[in-house]
Amino acid sequence: MREVVILGVGMHPFGKFLDVPLRDLTAVAVWQAIEDAGVDPRAIDVAYFGNAVGGIMTGQESVRGQVALKHAGLYGIPVVNVDNACASSSTALHEAVLGVGSGMYDVALAVGAEKLYSPDTGKSIEALASATDVEVVAAIGMQFTAYYAMELREFMEKTGTTQEDFARVVVKNSKNGSLNPYAQFRQPRSPEEVLAAREIAYPLTLYMCSAMGDGAAAAIVCAKEVAGRLSSRSPVSIKASTLMSGVLRQSEADPDTVVACARKAYSQAGIGPEDVEVVEVHDAMAPAEIQYYEELGLCGEGEGKELIRRGATDLTGEIPVNPSGGLASRGHPVGATGLAQIAEIVWQLRGEAGERQVKGKNGTTPRVGLTHNAGGLVEGEPAACCIHILSV
Amino acid sequence: MREVVILGVGMHPFGKFLDVPLRDLTAVAVWQAIEDAGVDPRAIDVAYFGNAVGGIMTGQESVRGQVALKHAGLYGIPVVNVDNACASSSTALHEAVLGVGSGMYDVALAVGAEKLYSPDTGKSIEALASATDVEVVAAIGMQFTAYYAMELREFMEKTGTTQEDFARVVVKNSKNGSLNPYAQFRQPRSPEEVLAAREIAYPLTLYMCSAMGDGAAAAIVCAKEVAGRLSSRSPVSIKASTLMSGVLRQSEADPDTVVACARKAYSQAGIGPEDVEVVEVHDAMAPAEIQYYEELGLCGEGEGKELIRRGATDLTGEIPVNPSGGLASRGHPVGATGLAQIAEIVWQLRGEAGERQVKGKNGTTPRVGLTHNAGGLVEGEPAACCIHILSV
Repeated sequence: MREVVILGVGMHPFGKFLDVPLRDLTAVAVWQAIEDAGVDPRAIDVAYFGNAVGGIMTGQESVRGQVALKHAGLYGIPVVNVDNACASSSTALHEAVLGVGSGMYDVALAVGAEKLYSPDTGKSIEALASATDVEVVAAIGMQFTAYYAMELREFMEKTGTTQEDFARVVVKNSKNGSLNPYAQFRQPRSPEEVLAAREIAYPLTLYMCSAMGDGAAAAIVCAKEVAGRLSSRSPVSIKASTLMSGVLRQSEADPDTVVACARKAYSQAGIGPEDVEVVEVHDAMAPAEIQYYEELGLCGEGEGKELIRRGATDLTGEIPVNPSGGLASRGHPVGATGLAQIAEIVWQLRGEAGERQVKGKNGTTPRVGLTHNAGGLVEGEPAACCIHILSV
Repeated sequence: MREVVILGVGMHPFGKFLDVPLRDLTAVAVWQAIEDAGVDPRAIDVAYFGNAVGGIMTGQESVRGQVALKHAGLYGIPVVNVDNACASSSTALHEAVLGVGSGMYDVALAVGAEKLYSPDTGKSIEALASATDVEVVAAIGMQFTAYYAMELREFMEKTGTTQEDFARVVVKNSKNGSLNPYAQFRQPRSPEEVLAAREIAYPLTLYMCSAMGDGAAAAIVCAKEVAGRLSSRSPVSIKASTLMSGVLRQSEADPDTVVACARKAYSQAGIGPEDVEVVEVHDAMAPAEIQYYEELGLCGEGEGKELIRRGATDLTGEIPVNPSGGLASRGHPVGATGLAQIAEIVWQLRGEAGERQVKGKNGTTPRVGLTHNAGGLVEGEPAACCIHILSV
């Protein structure tokens, strides 16, 4: 496969935009990515449009991307609409990587856009429930918060991680989010505030849960071999792009989906977790971040709590995680989240992350970053887990 | 790009199946494809699931493929959900070609499944309207029949094609459909019946329009280089896989989307229209078939009517078109149609099409087939036009 690079990224800030249609959110993110990439938009050969719940939320299914991109002034590019729940836009990027990597296309646009806010909150909840089997899981009223709460209680019991540790994740991420102009929630939270907040389902309190959100994010990718003639921008390489939808486990000892997907990604990139310098994880519920430390191999099993306690994943720590603020602070308009993670890592690897810029192992700009995006739930495992490893 | 081949295809018959859920339609098509391919299902590396309106029709967005495939007993395969209106499953195949062609995956499953029938017909109509810009085109009540009727009137005026010619298409296709055990409508129609049927929008009468339908179709594709060790099945090569979403035209003289997409496909395959021996076109309204003869280069401009008048596109003609019965007779459960076309061409190229088997130019089984699948409408052009050229 040809090597694929990212030339530019863009984002519409995440937030509550009841009056802004999906197409307008899309246009802002896409044109920012095109300008950032410094490419002629006529060079774009194909577009992958990630969106999870537009059909239920807006009645626009079938040709979501074509409608949004036409409105953005980008008519005439072949469009593939991609859906994978909260992992829709990392899946869009995965497909862009395959399209360019195969040689069929030279330049691809990957977009993720979502509107979750609605004057009718019931509609939003119905839409989000569609990330599970609606005839089984959603039908018994099993919401994602309830599912995470059960998982986290088991994790606490097994590892000795406490609710205070979970609050530490929110404290860290809300501080990061306060430094991110694209973030939906920019109020830093104290441990006391987090623990005293309304309980959603023990151990989850309000500030630990990602909220409704609207937003969009985009990236321009191309074959490394053509990057130089398209733009003077320094490309960021995509070293790994892996997708899994659950794994068959014979026993508890078998790797779960995140572990298996991460191993595949490290193998594709030819590196190990010790080489990663900055990470964005899918903390739809902030406490799960600690589980992901372990599953991504950033520490050993049961050691996640130590990382958060000693500040290892802070902006100034040895392995910063969620410098953007993560899903609970930056926001989580589901179909846009994957590419927002990618945008953050691209900015970090370029040294363009402003006040929340992290440093790499040698004290300068980091050179290797990882994103972990997950979507939906089938048989108790993520219906889509998509990991990308980027490097400069 | 690595050469990609089809090892097997499968279909759930098209029809009205109010009590059969999408997952059951899917399971039948997928397992038939797996058995036809003669591959171990554990060899499947990735699945592309095409569906257009499941979110609106069933409330299942986000993880449609994961839910359906889990039910089919295929849990743990990475799934990408693909939507492109009536071209959803040819787009799924296009993505499968890129995934395998790139070298990332060796074996891919492409599926298309759709349920359009509902006890609530209003819901079906709302769902189908989502193949246009719902805030503009659908909002003014512009249905596809109305749009086609306007296009066809212009075509009649320009080329001298008559309503009788359009009826001839239905006569041919309904005869073909009567020989197809997978077809939804198996009643051959006489020219008189077609012309006397209820007028939908002149020149369209009832039997010229595709109807509601439920169904599923699937294909197993793999890299040519691994086909031999996976199965003893003779592979069918995918010589071209092209996707376009409208084209920018400066003037009437510029090629429209179908013409441009076909030229790209012929160039990819290294052949011309004169080499094609059997064709499936997207006759959502049967008369449009005559336009497609011209746009695909099967004849010159304005000559389409001659082809249908002299029976050139009959099963026994020089270039058989829609041997399956096409959309109006085989049925058109939108997200399943593209792969149903592929299944038909695979059966024709293998000489397995039974009573509707066509002959190639040298009097034996045809060696080259083409499918033309279109989806949605943006700016008066197909939002997705997907052409595949297959050969043995």
